[in-house]
Amino acid sequence: MKAIIHINLKPGVLDPQGRTIARSLTHLGFDGVTAARQGKTIELDLKGEDKDAAETQVKDMCEKLLANTVIENYRIEIVE
Amino acid sequence: MKAIIHINLKPGVLDPQGRTIARSLTHLGFDGVTAARQGKTIELDLKGEDKDAAETQVKDMCEKLLANTVIENYRIEIVE
Repeated sequence: MKAIIHINLKPGVLDPQGRTIARSLTHLGFDGVTAARQGKTIELDLKGEDKDAAETQVKDMCEKLLANTVIENYRIEIVE
Repeated sequence: MKAIIHINLKPGVLDPQGRTIARSLTHLGFDGVTAARQGKTIELDLKGEDKDAAETQVKDMCEKLLANTVIENYRIEIVE
């Protein structure tokens, strides 16, 4: 089974990487970009076949290690 | 309009971040994780309403700046 975790900065948290991307794109001549935000994804291969148990465990992983819940939101997607 | 770009390492490219995540999860007691890979997402706010034109432009941005196409794959998703 696979789990995909989408981690993004919470609204209002300063995103210097996103600002740099937006500015660089404008400098390259892409005028249409008004804002950019960068996030990350973590894809996990998991043993077992129980989707609900997997989701509970991945949520625990996010809270303990993968996401910084003070400044980041996360969303879990279980596939297969 | 919004574009979300999903960027991942190509298969076979060494992913030290992913390996560190998998090892750390195992050390924390999560035995079910067999592999982990880390990717990134870039979310862009775009002017204009033409979806096809936006996709063409975002593809150009990926080739020129956002993705390192030697080692990374990207996927573009246009929303709204």
